[in-house]
Amino acid sequence: MADEAPFQLLHSEVIQYIYKSAEGETESGRNVTKLENIGFRVGQGLIERLTKDTARFKDELDIMKFICKDFWTCVFKKQIDNLRTNHQGIYVLQDNKFGLLSHLSVGKQYLEHAPKYLAFTCGLVRGALSNLGVKSIVTSEVSVMPSYSKKQTAEFIKLHRDSGDTNQN
Amino acid sequence: MADEAPFQLLHSEVIQYIYKSAEGETESGRNVTKLENIGFRVGQGLIERLTKDTARFKDELDIMKFICKDFWTCVFKKQIDNLRTNHQGIYVLQDNKFGLLSHLSVGKQYLEHAPKYLAFTCGLVRGALSNLGVKSIVTSEVSVMPSYSKKQTAEFIKLHRDSGDTNQN
Repeated sequence: MADEAPFQLLHSEVIQYIYKSAEGETESGRNVTKLENIGFRVGQGLIERLTKDTARFKDELDIMKFICKDFWTCVFKKQIDNLRTNHQGIYVLQDNKFGLLSHLSVGKQYLEHAPKYLAFTCGLVRGALSNLGVKSIVTSEVSVMPSYSKKQTAEFIKLHRDSGDTNQN
Repeated sequence: MADEAPFQLLHSEVIQYIYKSAEGETESGRNVTKLENIGFRVGQGLIERLTKDTARFKDELDIMKFICKDFWTCVFKKQIDNLRTNHQGIYVLQDNKFGLLSHLSVGKQYLEHAPKYLAFTCGLVRGALSNLGVKSIVTSEVSVMPSYSKKQTAEFIKLHRDSGDTNQN
């Protein structure tokens, strides 16, 4: 727990700072974008360090596996629990115990606050993929699981790979 | 290296974000204060988690040793290299290979950029001490060591304990 604590705490202070400093702005969407951009650049830097000595990736699925294992472990000290794909460019990464949400109370009424805690991570994945040459759109989804276990929150990150259109970023 | 990479990268993105978003402001001092405040709250949160199961500290020196060992290791994956004190409330913590400076080029001309990379850490220590009941003033200093080794940058954190005056924070 203590290992990822500095990162988690800094992450949540960044969210608070951004939301506080832009109180006047009506669009909460802009704050989400700011967080996403910060994540993007962290992801870019991180993937550079992590792939320094790895072999070239065979294909996109190979890249996604690296994101699920090595990349995720580096940031969140655990692997992605489940990776699904339709083999047409859509990947779903599922984390059943997502660290950056673990301090949120369980309950549907808190779900509305989830996006700001996920924006950084969406950017993180997008930045990492971008530096590996994969243009992507990363979105996230939270579903509250039954509270019989400690794994109350689940996270889905869906990666819609951008199919060739270079106008999108 | 990879272990602390997410934290280091996020830290440097936060600095860039704050300095970029406040470009109009003439005082760079305000940005340093913002970073220091973020560090303060992270330090508060962190020390709470770390001391959850520890025995009560005997005295101030005992607290400082905890900061140098457990606290520093949690954040920077290494201990403080040297702790000195005058036994009158001033402590000097020396880190010969401070992670948050390690990406800065060596050379006196870069020393002027050091304060913004140290502000967060000053706040971090101040926040931790504050939650342990020790009011303090934390300042930092960088000195460039001869470049014969990889340990080119050294950091000093001086802790001037505030002697009882409760007006200061």
